[in-house]
Amino acid sequence: MAKDSVSKNTNQVEIAAMEKDLRHIADIIKQKGREILNNYTITPPQFIALQWLDELGDMTIGDLSNKMYLAFSTTTDLIDRMEKNQLVQRVRDMQDRRVVRIHLLTEGEKIIKEVIEKRQKYLGNIVSDFQSSEIEELSALLHKMYVRMNDEMNED
Amino acid sequence: MAKDSVSKNTNQVEIAAMEKDLRHIADIIKQKGREILNNYTITPPQFIALQWLDELGDMTIGDLSNKMYLAFSTTTDLIDRMEKNQLVQRVRDMQDRRVVRIHLLTEGEKIIKEVIEKRQKYLGNIVSDFQSSEIEELSALLHKMYVRMNDEMNED
Repeated sequence: MAKDSVSKNTNQVEIAAMEKDLRHIADIIKQKGREILNNYTITPPQFIALQWLDELGDMTIGDLSNKMYLAFSTTTDLIDRMEKNQLVQRVRDMQDRRVVRIHLLTEGEKIIKEVIEKRQKYLGNIVSDFQSSEIEELSALLHKMYVRMNDEMNED
Repeated sequence: MAKDSVSKNTNQVEIAAMEKDLRHIADIIKQKGREILNNYTITPPQFIALQWLDELGDMTIGDLSNKMYLAFSTTTDLIDRMEKNQLVQRVRDMQDRRVVRIHLLTEGEKIIKEVIEKRQKYLGNIVSDFQSSEIEELSALLHKMYVRMNDEMNED
């Protein structure tokens, strides 16, 4: 019991350190992401919309609003601009004509693939001196953490 | 040599997965951070300024601008509002009266400590079913990653 309590205290220190490191990592990745987008015509919120459409396929504006934690009207404005720039297109569901989904167009897909590739290259450079086992470990633990975070968000 | 090449390919897959998980983790933490700030009078950029002042002590507006990746004028406006709300105070350097630093006041310190504690509690909840060794491993690897990212930013 005394050991459990010591172990819990140790983890508190590590959780505090993780919170700080994740906060700073998120800040740096945000800044790096902005630098990468400087070479493209899309904005940071457009990048987030494109990556969801690339990851999950055609989505309604409602689903996209939920994923982006944005108001429906904000997402509608975002999609309007992206449709004007021929990055995405609104398509009607063939089964249920009342349902409209956002579909990624070739130009949007090209941009999102390139931007994500540049982000991967940046991250690959960051971990270039990590041992292969460390990359495997970190990748597995980050995925586990993301799954828990996603579950917790959906519980709310 | 063939083995190295296989190992490199394996890591590419893991780096791609990490890039995606980090992207989604940063999104969720951003959203959680906003929810936590809903109970406080500070904005997200004010939170970032307060956490730097809490972590590094008194800073000039120039140093704070660099850390926040913001223009000097934007940081000045931010500090003006925070000074008006008695979260921080401008103080002159006793050795060199031309130098002005931003100093965290009691109310600013109280808020930043509370907000960070809530973020730690959230993260503690997320990793509550992780083994102690996994928390240690993840914490160490995230710190190593942050150190590399910070070095790389300072190289630019």
